[in-house]
Amino acid sequence: MGVNSTTTVNKIQSELPMSVVSSPLEIHNVRLPPRRSTSQKLRQRLSDIFFPDDPLHRFKNQPSWLVKLMLGVQCMFPIFQWGPTYNLSLFRSDVISGLTIASLAIPQGISYAKLANLPPIIGLYSSFVPPLIYSLLGSSKHLGVGPVSIASLVMGSMLSETVSYTQDPILYLKLAFTATFFAGVFQSSLGILRLGFVIDFLSKATLVGFMAGAAIIVSLQQLKGLLGIVHFTSKMQIIPVLASVFKQKEEWSWQTIVLGFGFLAFLLITRHISLRKPNLFWVSAAAPLASVILSTILVFLLRNKAHGIAIIGELPKGLNPPSSNMLFFSGPYLALAIKTGIVTGILSLTEGIAVGRTFAALKNYQVDGNKEMMAIGIMNIAGSCSSCYVTTGSFSRSAVNYNAGAQTAVSNIIMASAVLVTLLFLMPLFYYTPNVVLAAIIITAVIGLIDYQASYKLWKVDKLDFLACMCSFFGVLFISVPLGLSIAVAISVFKILLHVSRPNTLVLGNIPGTTIFHNVNQYREALRIPSFLILAVESPIYFANSTYLQERILRWVREEEEHIKANNGSKLECIILDMTAVTAIDTSGIDTLCELRKMLEKRSLQLVLANPVGSVMEKLHQSNILDSFGLKGVYLTVAEAVADISSSWKAQP
Amino acid sequence: MGVNSTTTVNKIQSELPMSVVSSPLEIHNVRLPPRRSTSQKLRQRLSDIFFPDDPLHRFKNQPSWLVKLMLGVQCMFPIFQWGPTYNLSLFRSDVISGLTIASLAIPQGISYAKLANLPPIIGLYSSFVPPLIYSLLGSSKHLGVGPVSIASLVMGSMLSETVSYTQDPILYLKLAFTATFFAGVFQSSLGILRLGFVIDFLSKATLVGFMAGAAIIVSLQQLKGLLGIVHFTSKMQIIPVLASVFKQKEEWSWQTIVLGFGFLAFLLITRHISLRKPNLFWVSAAAPLASVILSTILVFLLRNKAHGIAIIGELPKGLNPPSSNMLFFSGPYLALAIKTGIVTGILSLTEGIAVGRTFAALKNYQVDGNKEMMAIGIMNIAGSCSSCYVTTGSFSRSAVNYNAGAQTAVSNIIMASAVLVTLLFLMPLFYYTPNVVLAAIIITAVIGLIDYQASYKLWKVDKLDFLACMCSFFGVLFISVPLGLSIAVAISVFKILLHVSRPNTLVLGNIPGTTIFHNVNQYREALRIPSFLILAVESPIYFANSTYLQERILRWVREEEEHIKANNGSKLECIILDMTAVTAIDTSGIDTLCELRKMLEKRSLQLVLANPVGSVMEKLHQSNILDSFGLKGVYLTVAEAVADISSSWKAQP
Repeated sequence: MGVNSTTTVNKIQSELPMSVVSSPLEIHNVRLPPRRSTSQKLRQRLSDIFFPDDPLHRFKNQPSWLVKLMLGVQCMFPIFQWGPTYNLSLFRSDVISGLTIASLAIPQGISYAKLANLPPIIGLYSSFVPPLIYSLLGSSKHLGVGPVSIASLVMGSMLSETVSYTQDPILYLKLAFTATFFAGVFQSSLGILRLGFVIDFLSKATLVGFMAGAAIIVSLQQLKGLLGIVHFTSKMQIIPVLASVFKQKEEWSWQTIVLGFGFLAFLLITRHISLRKPNLFWVSAAAPLASVILSTILVFLLRNKAHGIAIIGELPKGLNPPSSNMLFFSGPYLALAIKTGIVTGILSLTEGIAVGRTFAALKNYQVDGNKEMMAIGIMNIAGSCSSCYVTTGSFSRSAVNYNAGAQTAVSNIIMASAVLVTLLFLMPLFYYTPNVVLAAIIITAVIGLIDYQASYKLWKVDKLDFLACMCSFFGVLFISVPLGLSIAVAISVFKILLHVSRPNTLVLGNIPGTTIFHNVNQYREALRIPSFLILAVESPIYFANSTYLQERILRWVREEEEHIKANNGSKLECIILDMTAVTAIDTSGIDTLCELRKMLEKRSLQLVLANPVGSVMEKLHQSNILDSFGLKGVYLTVAEAVADISSSWKAQP
Repeated sequence: MGVNSTTTVNKIQSELPMSVVSSPLEIHNVRLPPRRSTSQKLRQRLSDIFFPDDPLHRFKNQPSWLVKLMLGVQCMFPIFQWGPTYNLSLFRSDVISGLTIASLAIPQGISYAKLANLPPIIGLYSSFVPPLIYSLLGSSKHLGVGPVSIASLVMGSMLSETVSYTQDPILYLKLAFTATFFAGVFQSSLGILRLGFVIDFLSKATLVGFMAGAAIIVSLQQLKGLLGIVHFTSKMQIIPVLASVFKQKEEWSWQTIVLGFGFLAFLLITRHISLRKPNLFWVSAAAPLASVILSTILVFLLRNKAHGIAIIGELPKGLNPPSSNMLFFSGPYLALAIKTGIVTGILSLTEGIAVGRTFAALKNYQVDGNKEMMAIGIMNIAGSCSSCYVTTGSFSRSAVNYNAGAQTAVSNIIMASAVLVTLLFLMPLFYYTPNVVLAAIIITAVIGLIDYQASYKLWKVDKLDFLACMCSFFGVLFISVPLGLSIAVAISVFKILLHVSRPNTLVLGNIPGTTIFHNVNQYREALRIPSFLILAVESPIYFANSTYLQERILRWVREEEEHIKANNGSKLECIILDMTAVTAIDTSGIDTLCELRKMLEKRSLQLVLANPVGSVMEKLHQSNILDSFGLKGVYLTVAEAVADISSSWKAQP
């Protein structure tokens, strides 16, 4: 600072807010975090990345290896945790809820299998083996396991794009089992490798849009069954589906339409009743089975008169046949199977874990995400070897399970037993079940996925979230399910990158009477300190934003100087960067700080840093940039920086 | 809080550090930022994203349209800014520097064209038209424009993977011009659309590794010329290149080797001299031309004896022929041309802008990134129509230009004039110039790109940056140039996403005698406040990290409770989240906060927020979550939260 400017500085002093300057502020040194070796840091970082929940904490301080072994077994098979204390009253609750979800699971299983273009029996098989395995491995008490609409739809749409399920049903079945196998492998490896954060990238906004789009596609596709159309497009986009509906007008069958819309109305009304009065949950839970029974009896009675109504027909009796011989690991369709497996795997995992967490939060226990991934993955691997397709925790089934008073995973065992009885003895009863009632069941199930209130809330709170939601909605409707999803994920990631590459910078002012400095835009009472420009950077300083930040800060300086000129204010002398929110810095960021300092120095402006966090301080130290800032270049708080620098001006002759 | 706990609370009070509790802290309300409509916010955000430098600020407060027009013209053509004040003394400096860089540009042009597998004359053409156009449009005073090694190498490697330059030279040339055209279009559209941040994603770490890898590849490829090998691989990876060198051992020519290594030694020594003594910059600047002249004379004198030495041969005399008829916009090679154009466009843009910024910083003026992109883009579009290939600001040429005292872009015009004279009259002189000396010039030029000191610094300061650097280095060496680059960019982006999806959480403590709360790990003197757990979240709360943060915070709580139990400490009552570094929140983040609050409430723990920034406060308000937190759930600072909550405990009976 030249001698010329000292008179200006003295003038400034008298204008400074009293609180900052007059208080005898003690100046604290900024500390470096304790020195750690690279391997220590790496270990710490890796443990933070992969083991945020510290899964082994229960094993610590356990002297005996027997206890450790016991804990390990309990950890692998949660059934051993609650098994010893299981009693008759819990069992009674579980039997009731298990039978209730079985009455839902049987018609849903048959319907969802049709959604995946698979034989209806596969849906029942999938409601038998996976729930049994989940009850051994899963950590949620309320999850109702079985096939779900979204994963069924996605599997059906992805596979039938390449292979026709009417012309080559065996190949299609093989593909479905192989895809299920890869879904299971993918899911369990995410769990084992503790890479659960992969599913976090499907944000809630994306899922709201995706599920609504999928629900509309699924409902429109059910027009095939509801209207009794025989020749229908296998495409999944809204335009070909609607075109197909109206092109095949002469195939519409009035008997089917009457039956279908009748049962659809019945199901929707029961759904509405259960939504309004949650304790009448059993009305909507029992409605699908009731519809199936009623419609089957009806069609059986009219069997000589109503030829237009398509029926399920013969279903094989007996348990799941083994299907490990149908898996393939080579050939031209392998890539398709892997791709389908990964997409359905991610989607079903997201649903299963979200549902598990929701009900765990209601009963105040925690579900371990990584363990759930392993449980769901292993259950799908086992399923793929026993004629099951992709299964997960289903929202509708879990809600019924929860409301029916399920206490443990035993309710899944009860449900599986009910399905077992059905498979062994009751299959012939489904001969006359009309397809149209399955369509009505599917529509009723998926209509709840259209959550327009959630999307309105997204619009209100976060426009970019809403954009991601709309993109996945329209992407699914008009382009395709995997592409719609990828676009939405890309937008979500882009949003993060945009925030990082164009961070906010704020001007801070002092709140009178305190040492608090805050955004002058948010706090009207906050006063700017003459001769100082205090800027807060609201993001880590990275290669992706360092150029931007430099430009933006120089613009703040230019605007401040213009403002001072226009108002005859006191000359700008010092720029303080509040680094509180700069939670990381990389080499480009350090270079930028250095360069910025030099540029400002040439204009005889001082640049100081306030409150750099530990990791930033460490990097600044390692790169020796702190020397160039000097002892008086880094302060613990903005208030201390202002007090110290202005008192150093005062001290000058 | 139950009645039982009040005695505990009273006990706590006496243990609290005096500074926080005893000081009569005034409690400030947290304000919402002023209300703005969606369109206002959108406009503000877009202007922050696209116009951080406020490019129109000079037009503001200008009453007359004539002045505005003048400013507009000056803005488009910076030559009108400095043109009026140009004088003879500036001109003298520019002539000297212009002639100096011409002596470098002519041999470099010929050499780099060979690097791109193009006829040498194209390199000279490219040193004529683009510098002229840049001198009209560019905003840097010191940029020396012309072909550069990296872009030449990348273009050569990408094009010759598909098209052979020996078997189909016309198609190859067409491809090169078309790629140049698309590079120009891409560059200028980045400038016009103000999407300059795209090049920010090539971090410095990535570039250090990439350039070192490319330099090694280029140097090894020059062994073809240095050893006099005729049949050489066209591949770019290190293994096939080295294999080719040793397979063709019988083609090695000792005359070539002697000549080549002789001149290489000469060039390296001159380079070393200039590096040690910057004012001897002309030694290395003049060395390439001197080598060319010397070697040409030598070969001319020995022309009957040294048959092993390959020479350039006939070069056409005359100015750049038009080449717009050679551009194509359809056909099977269009995709290759566009891809090559984009990759070389990004790389040359990155180099040009970085070089421009470096020298602008030295002379304390600013280079407008977006304007530079337009200038470089237009110069390449014009170049592609006049037989030039990709050009940009070259580091070596700009350094010589700067050291030789260039004052304005006129030095580029002088250089272009010298090239013009060469093209018109001096071409026959290059007939006997040996290829081997060009190889030596290339090696000397690229060897400076291997910056091992920078990579050591990366290792020291940031291990992940170093990883990105090494990946691009080995990716370029062993896989391919574009793939190596993409891997490095992916790692850089992954680093950002990792930071966002696994943010740090810190425990804060009070620094005695102040109201400052800081990381207890960094500041050993910081004291934890009994009954409080104060956590700072060091990242925006997003869909990508909300689950993680919830788990991590619950783990902090669990660990704190275990710690208290083990040490008989006072019961945990309140968790304060310091939101200073939470610079944004999305709908998933808001849901997480809500859920966390409910979960902690069930354990009778209170959750309060301290210092939410403006945008976060706004979103919390919009989503009505603030009501659930209540009036006493959000504080301006941690200190006020602690003081207020502990005094409310005291007040209880």
